[in-house]
Amino acid sequence: MRQTKLFTKTRREDPADEVAKNAKLLIRAGYIHKEMAGVYSFLPLGLRVLEKIKNIIREEVNAIGGQEIMLTALQDKELWEKTDRWDDIKVDNWFKTKLKNGSEVGLGITHEEPLTQIMKDHISSYRDLPVYAYQFQTKFRNELRAKAGIMRGREFLMKDLYSFSATEADHQNFYAQARSAYVKIFQRVGLGDETHITFASGGIFSKFSEEFQTESEAGEDTIYLDEQKKVAINKEVLSDEVVAELGLDRKSLVEKRSIEVGNIFHLGTKFSEALGLVYQDEAGKSMPVIMGCYGLGPSRLMGTIVEIYADDGGLVWPLAIAPFQIHLVALGNTPAVITGADNLYEDLTKQGVEVLYDDRGLSAGEKLADADLLGLPYRVIVSDKTIASGQFEVKNRRSGETSFAGATEIIALIK
Amino acid sequence: MRQTKLFTKTRREDPADEVAKNAKLLIRAGYIHKEMAGVYSFLPLGLRVLEKIKNIIREEVNAIGGQEIMLTALQDKELWEKTDRWDDIKVDNWFKTKLKNGSEVGLGITHEEPLTQIMKDHISSYRDLPVYAYQFQTKFRNELRAKAGIMRGREFLMKDLYSFSATEADHQNFYAQARSAYVKIFQRVGLGDETHITFASGGIFSKFSEEFQTESEAGEDTIYLDEQKKVAINKEVLSDEVVAELGLDRKSLVEKRSIEVGNIFHLGTKFSEALGLVYQDEAGKSMPVIMGCYGLGPSRLMGTIVEIYADDGGLVWPLAIAPFQIHLVALGNTPAVITGADNLYEDLTKQGVEVLYDDRGLSAGEKLADADLLGLPYRVIVSDKTIASGQFEVKNRRSGETSFAGATEIIALIK
Repeated sequence: MRQTKLFTKTRREDPADEVAKNAKLLIRAGYIHKEMAGVYSFLPLGLRVLEKIKNIIREEVNAIGGQEIMLTALQDKELWEKTDRWDDIKVDNWFKTKLKNGSEVGLGITHEEPLTQIMKDHISSYRDLPVYAYQFQTKFRNELRAKAGIMRGREFLMKDLYSFSATEADHQNFYAQARSAYVKIFQRVGLGDETHITFASGGIFSKFSEEFQTESEAGEDTIYLDEQKKVAINKEVLSDEVVAELGLDRKSLVEKRSIEVGNIFHLGTKFSEALGLVYQDEAGKSMPVIMGCYGLGPSRLMGTIVEIYADDGGLVWPLAIAPFQIHLVALGNTPAVITGADNLYEDLTKQGVEVLYDDRGLSAGEKLADADLLGLPYRVIVSDKTIASGQFEVKNRRSGETSFAGATEIIALIK
Repeated sequence: MRQTKLFTKTRREDPADEVAKNAKLLIRAGYIHKEMAGVYSFLPLGLRVLEKIKNIIREEVNAIGGQEIMLTALQDKELWEKTDRWDDIKVDNWFKTKLKNGSEVGLGITHEEPLTQIMKDHISSYRDLPVYAYQFQTKFRNELRAKAGIMRGREFLMKDLYSFSATEADHQNFYAQARSAYVKIFQRVGLGDETHITFASGGIFSKFSEEFQTESEAGEDTIYLDEQKKVAINKEVLSDEVVAELGLDRKSLVEKRSIEVGNIFHLGTKFSEALGLVYQDEAGKSMPVIMGCYGLGPSRLMGTIVEIYADDGGLVWPLAIAPFQIHLVALGNTPAVITGADNLYEDLTKQGVEVLYDDRGLSAGEKLADADLLGLPYRVIVSDKTIASGQFEVKNRRSGETSFAGATEIIALIK
């Protein structure tokens, strides 16, 4: 894409009303726009990152048998009363509104209830199980505070996967597959090294749930990590008993600040019993379906990557989720530079490389500062100097390393 | 996809609480689920149709320079007060809710206000214009009645495109391009013949807007169509004066029921003046930006296609938007049939054909009735008889024509 066509502009100053690094940088770089605290619109570059993250998640969840669906925001009060999650005293972050006839409805905070209800139409026998269904969908949570940018939104995108199994063994088998899929997702988006499976509170359904916690000073959570064994415990559940149960030693646990980027839960039969989702087993006996849920927020993940990767110059994107792979920057406006840059842009684009081409009539200083701020993985300079040398200057945004390369070598960097 | 893996089931009976044909059939076929009146979840087959429609729209809107974004549902009261569209007396279909601090917020009914506000950060000079930005986003409208299935939702998906131009000539030029893009979209999804550009009320911004109205008895609108000239007038604005102005003759106008599947509006400077979106022209003079908006609801379009195409047997999908292109149905459970069907499934899938493979252990009658109900464009039968003949039986769902073909010919039908 030619940058003269991209409608977003960058700005030099941090927005005055943001404290989170991710929000400051994403707003300055024109990736997002703040509508109100915890509510952000995604502009073209930001949406491209979000869609790439979604696609990685989609591929990994499809690979373990997930079927994609799209549930609704508007929620029926009666359904949530059956599981005792409607009352504001029980669940304190609902947004609620009313239909014209006066009926109260809520905006979905999560979707166990409606999906369990849907499954009553489609599951009746053990032959109908297992079922794995997921969605990318907007959640609404009326948070008291929302100062963490896109890491904690009042309105935010969530991937939520739900499993429906006949037996505990089937459930555990899928739960392990979902855990492995999550590990792959965090590796693919560039957070593999910093993200740890963490034992956390299981709620009333099971002793533990597992969280995926990414080390970051920007996090709201505290975990205790055994760096050798790659196992962590959330501070919420840390006790001598738990440490012993997990075969760990308090002395080898290091305290870390971290961001919860995903979680996987055993739900047991809580929802299926409350809402009547049962199946007939092989003997003809009616049994409640065993459920699990697996959450992962693409927008929170995007914010986390900003927190981990960004540097003083601005954003830094891993190749797999960058809005464009190459930032082609033409410096100078001689016919040779313009023709050279135009030709390289066409060459790379034809080869399927995603190129943002800075063809704007700005100074070299402005263009290079913007390239750093936007954070694309490779910056390729075309100038009178590079044309004289017969090669282009390529800078790796993350490492800062500069080299000289031809078009073929640039394509090889990406593939 | 193997149908044994698809979690949705069909049902023989119409849902008791639906009057619209689209809702009845889509629910019976397991494409959607009703959460409450006018609020539907999309199940795997339904979501596949919706995504195909979105992709066609996306391709055509990108082709005229649209940049995709994603705005939010939660809306700031103060912004909408500036354009006098907050008060329930002025706009009667808001859903409103409250933040924890008591501030009232709305759920987006449309997005002129927030996008105009965003553009103030990105447009300051004539050099920054034109800008065309669009999104696929959930709209919330608190309709008094919602009995038209997915054709009129309280919560529904909308593609809304907004144009920002410096001059009236630039605006008119883009408006004409958007009109042409819409014509292509309706052709590609299979509604080209039945859809007519219709003069309708322009609101306060211009004399007329243009609607795209699809002929259907299920429609809520009435239009007067000149079938020769392919021009229509919405009943709302029909008068001798308008008929004369458009160079038409009352005697050649035929009354039709129709569904409004899209509309394109001149917005003038209403929003840019109210919200202060100005640019400096070449002479350095501050001018309000000229806007247009272009709406098209993918879910309404999907419902309209059901209304137009479905027959007594069930749904009928045009090839371009069908959830799968081929419904491969194995009849009988002899090893020859199973192997033959498995092999054809793999062959077609490898060639990039989208196949739903009915590998379920049900009777021929149940499988054929389900194939009709699901409405995929081509049904391919593998049975002992077809194996003996060396060819497969192929039925065109829409025309009902049956022929015999090999795998290569089946692939040729799709490409």
